[in-house]
Amino acid sequence: MKIGTTHLFVPGPTVVPEVVRRAMNVPMEDHRAPDFPDFVLEILSDLRCVFRLRTGRVLLYPGSGTAAWEASITNCLERGDRVLMSRFGHFSHLWADMARRLGLDVVCHDVPWGEGVPVETYERELRADPSIKAVFVTHNETSTGVASDVRAVRRAMDAAGSDALLFVDGVSSIGSVDFRQEDWGVDLAVAGSQKGFMLPAGLAILGVSERAVEAAERTATERCFFSFRDMITANDVGYFPYTPPTPLLHGLRASLDRLLDEGMDDVAARHRRLGHGVRQGVQAWGLDLCATAPRWHSDTVTAVRLPTDVDGAALCRNAYHRYRTSFGGGLGKVAGKVFRIGHLGDVNEVSCLTALAAAEMALLDAGAAIDPGAGVAAAQQYFRQALADEKGGEPVIRT
Amino acid sequence: MKIGTTHLFVPGPTVVPEVVRRAMNVPMEDHRAPDFPDFVLEILSDLRCVFRLRTGRVLLYPGSGTAAWEASITNCLERGDRVLMSRFGHFSHLWADMARRLGLDVVCHDVPWGEGVPVETYERELRADPSIKAVFVTHNETSTGVASDVRAVRRAMDAAGSDALLFVDGVSSIGSVDFRQEDWGVDLAVAGSQKGFMLPAGLAILGVSERAVEAAERTATERCFFSFRDMITANDVGYFPYTPPTPLLHGLRASLDRLLDEGMDDVAARHRRLGHGVRQGVQAWGLDLCATAPRWHSDTVTAVRLPTDVDGAALCRNAYHRYRTSFGGGLGKVAGKVFRIGHLGDVNEVSCLTALAAAEMALLDAGAAIDPGAGVAAAQQYFRQALADEKGGEPVIRT
Amino acid sequence: MKIGTTHLFVPGPTVVPEVVRRAMNVPMEDHRAPDFPDFVLEILSDLRCVFRLRTGRVLLYPGSGTAAWEASITNCLERGDRVLMSRFGHFSHLWADMARRLGLDVVCHDVPWGEGVPVETYERELRADPSIKAVFVTHNETSTGVASDVRAVRRAMDAAGSDALLFVDGVSSIGSVDFRQEDWGVDLAVAGSQKGFMLPAGLAILGVSERAVEAAERTATERCFFSFRDMITANDVGYFPYTPPTPLLHGLRASLDRLLDEGMDDVAARHRRLGHGVRQGVQAWGLDLCATAPRWHSDTVTAVRLPTDVDGAALCRNAYHRYRTSFGGGLGKVAGKVFRIGHLGDVNEVSCLTALAAAEMALLDAGAAIDPGAGVAAAQQYFRQALADEKGGEPVIRT
Amino acid sequence: MKIGTTHLFVPGPTVVPEVVRRAMNVPMEDHRAPDFPDFVLEILSDLRCVFRLRTGRVLLYPGSGTAAWEASITNCLERGDRVLMSRFGHFSHLWADMARRLGLDVVCHDVPWGEGVPVETYERELRADPSIKAVFVTHNETSTGVASDVRAVRRAMDAAGSDALLFVDGVSSIGSVDFRQEDWGVDLAVAGSQKGFMLPAGLAILGVSERAVEAAERTATERCFFSFRDMITANDVGYFPYTPPTPLLHGLRASLDRLLDEGMDDVAARHRRLGHGVRQGVQAWGLDLCATAPRWHSDTVTAVRLPTDVDGAALCRNAYHRYRTSFGGGLGKVAGKVFRIGHLGDVNEVSCLTALAAAEMALLDAGAAIDPGAGVAAAQQYFRQALADEKGGEPVIRT
Repeated sequence: MKIGTTHLFVPGPTVVPEVVRRAMNVPMEDHRAPDFPDFVLEILSDLRCVFRLRTGRVLLYPGSGTAAWEASITNCLERGDRVLMSRFGHFSHLWADMARRLGLDVVCHDVPWGEGVPVETYERELRADPSIKAVFVTHNETSTGVASDVRAVRRAMDAAGSDALLFVDGVSSIGSVDFRQEDWGVDLAVAGSQKGFMLPAGLAILGVSERAVEAAERTATERCFFSFRDMITANDVGYFPYTPPTPLLHGLRASLDRLLDEGMDDVAARHRRLGHGVRQGVQAWGLDLCATAPRWHSDTVTAVRLPTDVDGAALCRNAYHRYRTSFGGGLGKVAGKVFRIGHLGDVNEVSCLTALAAAEMALLDAGAAIDPGAGVAAAQQYFRQALADEKGGEPVIRT
Repeated sequence: MKIGTTHLFVPGPTVVPEVVRRAMNVPMEDHRAPDFPDFVLEILSDLRCVFRLRTGRVLLYPGSGTAAWEASITNCLERGDRVLMSRFGHFSHLWADMARRLGLDVVCHDVPWGEGVPVETYERELRADPSIKAVFVTHNETSTGVASDVRAVRRAMDAAGSDALLFVDGVSSIGSVDFRQEDWGVDLAVAGSQKGFMLPAGLAILGVSERAVEAAERTATERCFFSFRDMITANDVGYFPYTPPTPLLHGLRASLDRLLDEGMDDVAARHRRLGHGVRQGVQAWGLDLCATAPRWHSDTVTAVRLPTDVDGAALCRNAYHRYRTSFGGGLGKVAGKVFRIGHLGDVNEVSCLTALAAAEMALLDAGAAIDPGAGVAAAQQYFRQALADEKGGEPVIRT
Repeated sequence: MKIGTTHLFVPGPTVVPEVVRRAMNVPMEDHRAPDFPDFVLEILSDLRCVFRLRTGRVLLYPGSGTAAWEASITNCLERGDRVLMSRFGHFSHLWADMARRLGLDVVCHDVPWGEGVPVETYERELRADPSIKAVFVTHNETSTGVASDVRAVRRAMDAAGSDALLFVDGVSSIGSVDFRQEDWGVDLAVAGSQKGFMLPAGLAILGVSERAVEAAERTATERCFFSFRDMITANDVGYFPYTPPTPLLHGLRASLDRLLDEGMDDVAARHRRLGHGVRQGVQAWGLDLCATAPRWHSDTVTAVRLPTDVDGAALCRNAYHRYRTSFGGGLGKVAGKVFRIGHLGDVNEVSCLTALAAAEMALLDAGAAIDPGAGVAAAQQYFRQALADEKGGEPVIRT
Repeated sequence: MKIGTTHLFVPGPTVVPEVVRRAMNVPMEDHRAPDFPDFVLEILSDLRCVFRLRTGRVLLYPGSGTAAWEASITNCLERGDRVLMSRFGHFSHLWADMARRLGLDVVCHDVPWGEGVPVETYERELRADPSIKAVFVTHNETSTGVASDVRAVRRAMDAAGSDALLFVDGVSSIGSVDFRQEDWGVDLAVAGSQKGFMLPAGLAILGVSERAVEAAERTATERCFFSFRDMITANDVGYFPYTPPTPLLHGLRASLDRLLDEGMDDVAARHRRLGHGVRQGVQAWGLDLCATAPRWHSDTVTAVRLPTDVDGAALCRNAYHRYRTSFGGGLGKVAGKVFRIGHLGDVNEVSCLTALAAAEMALLDAGAAIDPGAGVAAAQQYFRQALADEKGGEPVIRT
C-alpha cells in the first residue's frame, strides 16, 4: 500500500506546480471558438521569451521531445543530407539513431560518457567538410548529467565558415538553465513540456529560427502531422491544424506566467544554486559524478557513479518501494552504474535535501559506505550561505 | 464576461465525465517505475474490448487523430503503394490529401457530400485492380454527419478477392457507435482521445490487426516517432518508447471503466437514441440534414442544412457569444451552409434538449423560419417514449 | 448507471463556476502563516462589497445558513427578548422555531404560503409594542419562491419609531438579487456559501452592522464557537479563532472576483432576466406559481404549483432517475404540491431552457396537461428579446 | 515569489492524500436526492470503524474541532454541571475556558506543560466528589506534543465508582494513533477533519456513545445547530438537518477507504514509527522535547524546546520565508520557546527526514548549536532498521 507523498526526483517528468495543476483542470472547449486565437497567440508569443527568440517562432505539437526531434529533422533536412553529431549518453545516442533511421548521412563522434559535445572536433570536421548541412548538440545529456557549451559550437561553426543549421536538444535544459536561442544562433531548439515547463508530458515544443523556417520551405520531402507549413498557417490565425490538447495549453499559460514572473535569469540562477547544492552532497558522500569535470556539470540533473559493488537498478527499486522515492536509474551504457537525481522545474532547496536524505538511505541499504547525513549537511551549509547571500544577510539570524 | 456554463455541442472535443476529469488530476510520476507496467498493460488490454479486437493490439501515441492517420499509413504502406479512397466531407478529403502527400498512389472517388463510402464502386475497383494495397473508409464523416457501412466494405473486398488492408477512420465513431474491428476485418482503426473516449485531445489511439502488425514488419520505410516496432517492443514490457502523457493515461483508465461498465452495446444504443431524438428535432424545424438518406445518418453528429439566406458561421458566432453555446460550423465545401450538433460521449437526453433549445434561439436570431420550441417538443416526445420503453413502462407515470 | 451531466436545478447548492472550482483545488497550508492575513483581510473587505456594507463587518463561520441564523441570535439577543417574526414557508418556519428553542419570546405572524413579510402588520405591532428587540425578515423564502421587501420593513420600523435590530435571512438572495445591507438598515444579514456565492456548502456568511456588533458586546449570554468577539479579535489581525476551511476561502476569493467583475447591479439584472424567463415558461404551461402575486416573485427560485392529480415528489424522483435532472421538491406544507426550479448563481439563459425542457418531460410523465415545448418557446422568445435589448440590437441578426 | 512545494509540517491541517484530493473535486449535487442516503449511511457506518465504536454513533457537523467541543458540551451537559478537567497546554486551556464560558462548574487541575492528564489526581477527585458529571481528557495535547492515557482515566473512574461521562479531545489523535472509543469507555470523542482524517478543515467529527445519546435526550437546554436530536433524526434516514459540505463528504469517503485499507492498527504502528524517528532526530540535536518523559511522547506531533537564546517565532518565520517550510510555532505559555513538527496523516519516512533537514537549517540560522545533518542521520538509521524489520529483512540489501 502506498502511504504518503511519492517523492519524485526523476529528471522529468518534473513536479507540476500547484498553480499549473489548477490551470489544467478545465472542461473541454471548442478549439475553433471565435476567441480561441486570443488565447493561443499570447502563448506562442510568450514562449519566445523562454527560448529568448526575438525572431522566428515556437511551434507546439502534441507529442514528446522525440516528436520534436523528428519534426525538426523531417522539416528542415532531406534524406541523404550530411549532419554532424556526437554521442555521449543515452539520449544523444537515440538522436543519432533517429537521424540515421530517417535517412541522414550522419557523421557521428563518440565521446566518453561523462563529457559533452567536442567543440574542437566539430570545428575541425566543419572546416574539412563544407557539405555538412546541420550540426547537432545535446545541450544537457539527461542520462549522464552533462551540459555542453552551445554558444561555443556556434562560434566554432562561424570560425569554420559553416552555414549549417544548428540543432539543439534542450529537452532538459530549456526553461531551467541559461538558454539563448537567438544569441547563440540555434536554428532548431527541441523541448518538451515535462521538464523545465513543469507540465505533464504531451507537448513537443520547438523553437525555430527564421533560417529554419526558410529551410523547411525549401525542403522537398512531404510531412503531414509534423509539417511546419501546416502548423504555421494555422498558428498565424491562432488555431492549430488539428485538435490541440487544451488542458496542456492552459497549463502552459500558467507555466509561462510562472517562469516569466520569476524571470528567466532568476530561474537559471536558482537551478545553478540547486545543482551546486546537490553536488556538494554527492561530494560529501565521497562518490563521483558521472560528469567528469566541472565544465560538464549539469544544473538540472546529477548522475552519481556508484561503487562497483552497488547495483543502481536495485537501489532505485528499493528507494521506490521502501521509501516512496523515485530516482532516475542508469540508462544505456551506464545502466546499473549510476543513479540520477533530477533537480529541475518547480524545485526548491528543501526539496533537494529531501532527495539527498532519501538517497542516503537507499545508498546505505545498497551497501555504499557513506556517512549518514553527510550529504544533507553539506548541502544545508551551502544552501544556507547561498540564500543568505542572495538576501544580503547572514546565515545566522539574531532577532 | 462569460457567465455560466459553456454549453458544448461540437462533435469533439466532447464533455469529459466528472469521474474521468477527477482521474486526470494527478501529480507527476515516474513512467519507468517498477509498477508502471501493471497500470499500462491493463489499459492496453481493456482498449481491445472497446475496439472489439480479440487479436492484434491497440497502440497509443501522444497526438491527435491526424497522428493516428499518419502512423497507420507510414507503418503499413510504402511510397507508391496504390490505395483506394473516397471523399465526401472535410475529413475524408484531408485523409486523401495526407495519403497523397505521403507518397501513396491514391485512387480516390469523389462522392456527393451527404453520402458515404460507395461500396459498389469500391468492389468494382478492387475487381478491376488487384494491385490495390489498401482500402480506406471514413466510418463517420464528422463534417457532414454521415456514417458508412464498414462491414459492407470488407464484404465487398472479400467478394472481389482483395487481400488489401482495410483502414478505417473511426475518430468520431469508435467508443460511441457500433464498431467491431475483428468481425469487420478492419486492419487499422484510427481513433482519438477527444471523442468517444471522452478525454481531452492528446492521444492518438490506433487499433491494429495482426495482419497490420505483420505488414508493418515487412515495410521498408523507416519511421521513428510513430514506429509500430518501437512502440510494441516497449508496450510488451508495459512501457512506452518515450515519456507518455500520464494524466491522459489515468483519464483513459477511468474512461475505459466507464465505457465497459455501461457496456459497448448499451453505449451504442444510447447514441442511437440520442441521434434519433436530435434528428426528430431537426425534422420538426422543417430543415434538412446534410446526410441525404437515413442509411447515412450518423448517431454521433448531426449536420443541419441551413436555409440559403442563413449564414452558418454567423449563427455559430452568435450562439457562442450570446448564448454561450458551441456548435460545430460547416467545414470545407459546406462552410456557412450547415451547422453541426455533436451528441457523442458523455451525453444524455436532457443535454440534447439543451442543444436543440439553444439552436432554436440561434436559428431564429439568424432569421430561420422555424417554430420556437418545435424541435425540443419533438425530441421530448421521442425521448419520453424511448426511455419508457427501455424501462418497460409507460411515459405517463401515475403514483 | 449515471450517464452524462446531472442537470442541477435545486435552489442551492448551486453550480460552482469552473474558475471557483479550480481555485478550491489547493493543497493544505498553515492558517497561521505570516502571510495568511493578507489573504484573509482582502476577502473580508471584499465581502462587504457584496453585502453593500460601508461600515460593520462580514463574519465567516464554518457552517451552513442555519449556523449563521444561530450566530446572529445568540450573539445579539438574550433569552426572553421579544422578537417579531412571520412565517410563510419552510425556512421562515424553521427560523421561528429556532428562535423559540433558543429562548426568545417570539411574536410570530402566520401568512399564507405564497405571500411574504406583512409589512403593515409589522408596523402595527411595532407601534403597539415598543419592547420588541428585533424584527426578522426572510428576504427570499426558498420553499415558495417568494421575495419580500426588506427596505419597506426598515421604513415601517422607522415610521413606528422602533430601534429594534433588523435580522434578514438572505441565504437565497444575497449575492444574486439586489441587497443593500447598509442602505436598508439591516443589522444581521444571513447568507451561506452554497447559493449566490456559488461555492459548496460549508461557510456561514454573516453581514453585521455596527449596531449589531455593539449589541453583541452588551449581550451577557456566553457563546464560544459562534462568538462575535472571538471572531472579530482574530479577524482583526487576519486570522480565525480556529482552523478555517481554507479551500472554501480560496473558492470565496475566486467567487468574489467573479461577482465583483460582473458587478452586483449586473448580477441582479441577470437574475431578474433569468427569473422572468422561467416564469414566462411556467405561464405558457398554464400552471400557477406558488407566489400569489408579481410583487412576491423571486428571481432566484420559482416554485410551481402542480395540478392536484400530480404528485410533486414522484415528479422529482422521475426527473432525477430518468432524466438526470434535480429539481427542488416541495417542503413542509407544500410537500408534493409544488416543485421548484433554482435559477441562481452561475446560471445563464440556456441553462434555464434546459431546466424548462427537462421539467416539461417530467410534467408530461407525471400526467400534467401541458404543451410540450411551450415553456421553452416562451422563455426563448423572452430571452432573445432581452439579450438583444441589452446589446442594443435586434433579435434577428442579418449578416 | 513562492517557488516549489511548500513543505507542510504543522500538526494540522495535514497533507491531503492525492486520492482524497481528487475525490473532493466534485460538482455540486442535490443533498436531498433519492440516492444520497446510500452515500451518507455508509460513511456514518465506516466512521465507527475509525473510532472503534460498536454501538453509539459518529456525528458530522460543518465546523472545526472547537465546534465538536461545543456540541459535546451543550448536548450532554447543563449549565451548572460539575466537571473535572486538567490543563497542560494551549488546547486543554481553551477547552476548560469554553466549559466555563458555557456555564459548567469546572474543577480544573493545572499540570506542568509537558505532562499529561493526572490520572491519580482524577481518581482522588472522583472519589471525593460524586457530583462530578463529566471527566475531560485531552488525549493528545497538540501544543506540547503530549499524549495522555485515556484508558487509565476510565479505569480510575471505574475504580472511584464514578458514572460520569468521559469526554475526550482526540482532535490530533483519532485516525492516527491507537484510539478505542468503546473499549476505553469514552462517551464523547471529539475529532476534526483536518488531522488524522487528512482532509481540509470544515468537519467537526464526534464519536458519541449510547450513554451520551441518552444523556443528550435528558438534557433540558435547547440547542439548534448542534442538536444531537435533529442530527440523529436526519441521519437515521441518510440526510442532514441542513445543507452538508458535500465535497468534504466525498473526501471523507476516500479518506475512510484509505484508513481502513491500511488498517487502523497499521496506521497507529506507522505513526509510532514516524514519531520515534523524529524524536531520534531531536535527541541527536541535543535538544529537549517539551514532553518531559517517554510516557507523554506524542506520535503525531513533536514539540521541541529551543535553547533560551533562540526565538521560536523568528525561527518559524525564517523557515517559512526562506525555506518554504511550515512548522508549528509555540502557543500560549510556550510561545517562542518551542517549535513543533507535525507528523500525522499522510506522512511517510522521507517526509519526516524533510522536516528534520529543513528544521536543521532553521535551527542553525537561529543560532542553535546543533550538528548539521545529525538529526537526519539519526532518523535515517532508525527508519532503515524499522522498515527492514517490518519487511523481515536486513537494512543492507545485497542483490
